[in-house]
Amino acid sequence: MAYRFASDVYRHRLERARALTRAAGLDALVVSTGPDLRYLTGSRADTFERLTALVIPADADPRLVVARLELASVRDSALDDLDVEMSAWVDGEDPYAIALSGLATTARIAVCDTMPALHVVPIAARTGATPALATDVLRELRMTKDRSEIDALRQAGAAIDRVHARMGEWLTPGRTERAVADDIRTAILDEGHTEAAFIIVGSGPHGADPHHEFSDRVIEADDIVVIDIGGPVDPGYHSDSTRTYCFAEPPADVAEAYAALEEAQRMAVEAVRPGVTAESVDAVARDHLREHGLADAFIHRTGHGIGLSVHEEPYIVSGNKIELQPGMAFSVEPGVYFDRRWGARIEDIVVVTEGGCEPMNTRPHDLQVL
Amino acid sequence: MAYRFASDVYRHRLERARALTRAAGLDALVVSTGPDLRYLTGSRADTFERLTALVIPADADPRLVVARLELASVRDSALDDLDVEMSAWVDGEDPYAIALSGLATTARIAVCDTMPALHVVPIAARTGATPALATDVLRELRMTKDRSEIDALRQAGAAIDRVHARMGEWLTPGRTERAVADDIRTAILDEGHTEAAFIIVGSGPHGADPHHEFSDRVIEADDIVVIDIGGPVDPGYHSDSTRTYCFAEPPADVAEAYAALEEAQRMAVEAVRPGVTAESVDAVARDHLREHGLADAFIHRTGHGIGLSVHEEPYIVSGNKIELQPGMAFSVEPGVYFDRRWGARIEDIVVVTEGGCEPMNTRPHDLQVL
Repeated sequence: MAYRFASDVYRHRLERARALTRAAGLDALVVSTGPDLRYLTGSRADTFERLTALVIPADADPRLVVARLELASVRDSALDDLDVEMSAWVDGEDPYAIALSGLATTARIAVCDTMPALHVVPIAARTGATPALATDVLRELRMTKDRSEIDALRQAGAAIDRVHARMGEWLTPGRTERAVADDIRTAILDEGHTEAAFIIVGSGPHGADPHHEFSDRVIEADDIVVIDIGGPVDPGYHSDSTRTYCFAEPPADVAEAYAALEEAQRMAVEAVRPGVTAESVDAVARDHLREHGLADAFIHRTGHGIGLSVHEEPYIVSGNKIELQPGMAFSVEPGVYFDRRWGARIEDIVVVTEGGCEPMNTRPHDLQVL
Repeated sequence: MAYRFASDVYRHRLERARALTRAAGLDALVVSTGPDLRYLTGSRADTFERLTALVIPADADPRLVVARLELASVRDSALDDLDVEMSAWVDGEDPYAIALSGLATTARIAVCDTMPALHVVPIAARTGATPALATDVLRELRMTKDRSEIDALRQAGAAIDRVHARMGEWLTPGRTERAVADDIRTAILDEGHTEAAFIIVGSGPHGADPHHEFSDRVIEADDIVVIDIGGPVDPGYHSDSTRTYCFAEPPADVAEAYAALEEAQRMAVEAVRPGVTAESVDAVARDHLREHGLADAFIHRTGHGIGLSVHEEPYIVSGNKIELQPGMAFSVEPGVYFDRRWGARIEDIVVVTEGGCEPMNTRPHDLQVL
């Protein structure tokens, strides 16, 4: 696939973003580089201290503020096709004045959630108020994927499934987590990702830390090993899938807890359908684990939305009352963690359909003995 | 080197940060993950949507707010040795309330410049005011490097110089920029960096774009090629060095412009000493290029500070009246760019000394014919 969709896709998204800006009672969105800018324009630009930002006024055409020396990086996008005006600035000029020109000094602004404080603070100083979060405006757009986006997620899911299918090639006792991670990194790229965004090889006690990455620990023959891996495929949509492995039949207590986890994950996936809330899916997994005495072992939310960001709305977490709709994409990934001993997690990405959901990952869910 | 300094280094930095917070009339600094947190605690944690932040109240001990499932990632730091209190929160709790507990509802807060709007906005909502930037408080600390930091920058400089010294192994006509970049990436890691943070292979017309990375363009025998590369060495300090290469004696107009650039870079380095302003160093390079009719060809500032961030204070740019002091570290990197034709840049990192400056990079400055 190309790194971006056809320009008409972005024209449509920009029009919808502008309508939502107006509907939210805002005067403008200001979107600096990151997933929101890629969503709206196809641009992969990544800048920090020099402001590059798409300004979407409620009542005027969108325009891009960009440092002159970074102009080339944003040309690699749909912006030229969309006739978005480019306001280039040079070192020494005030990019915030340029970004907010044409807007009232009391304009109600929303900024993207990845904008660093470095830019948020001077924007707030010019309007006399802390900006709102554009996430609230763009959530509705970004959260519901269209067919092309779902197809990209499907390709990403198939790519990471191919990596998991080959796990026996690399994951063996006597190797370090780091050596295994290096092989996985190569496979993630070979199987079609543009980047290995994250690799967790959590062996034995390290599996009990959900966010452990990898270390020089040598994997042992009686370890349970959590492998959580993913990355983007063009045009920027992410895979993210976890499976748990071992090298011999597990002891009875491990098998029992794992069986409860497998049921919890399956039940949560089965609960996904239009109209149910995000938090109710979390509750299905959590309640089932609680019934098996594993409430304290499940120390994180059940999932997170996924797309151009690895983590985005909808979060599958207690308190999130968003009602699921067709096209929403998120992980369902309960886990159980036993401090300093072992852990396990099962993670699939699912996309909500009219009648339930379609999993993007189809590898077996059982504790796989390599 | 280890990934962090001894714990006493961080104890001292935290004490100074607290004193500067008080002196600035602030009630607290809130520092989320990134270079400021690494500077203050040694932590390499990198989180986005779940708030991890060090809170440094002016009138109480520092404490760390961290998601429970990311607790392990921050333990890999000096925080345990420093007896910093850890406030762990779980999904569903309000980390902002925890971060600001014990502070008045009108507390004057400053946040680090990398904190995303996602966290800045709710912090602002709780205090009723947009936070200030902690950069203004921490600049004085981070900008002036101590001996251990300068030693790390020296090691980083030597490591990237070794990569430049081997450029002839990879940079040849008939190869793509991407293939050359792949070899450079391997060499950056082999020579002691923990990451290849950036790689620019700007051949022929691509050299005219200062922020071009690399592409599938095949390098030609009469190209001028800009190579700008760097990355961190433990404990996190960056290299960043640019040299310009070619494969045959260049045409007279290229040689002439390059000679002026080489003089401009040398003169700017010679201008560095305690007491002169950052902008005056920029002016030295800029004036010299202007005298040679190259004012329009030099389209960016002369340099940027460097340390735990690739780009930090002091910026060597018109308008920056900071007076240079011993221990400040920054790039001196004028360039000349001729749209759609060619470009050249020479970049060394220098550290200000009592009598002038010490370059961290010592490779020859001439247009190197490979």
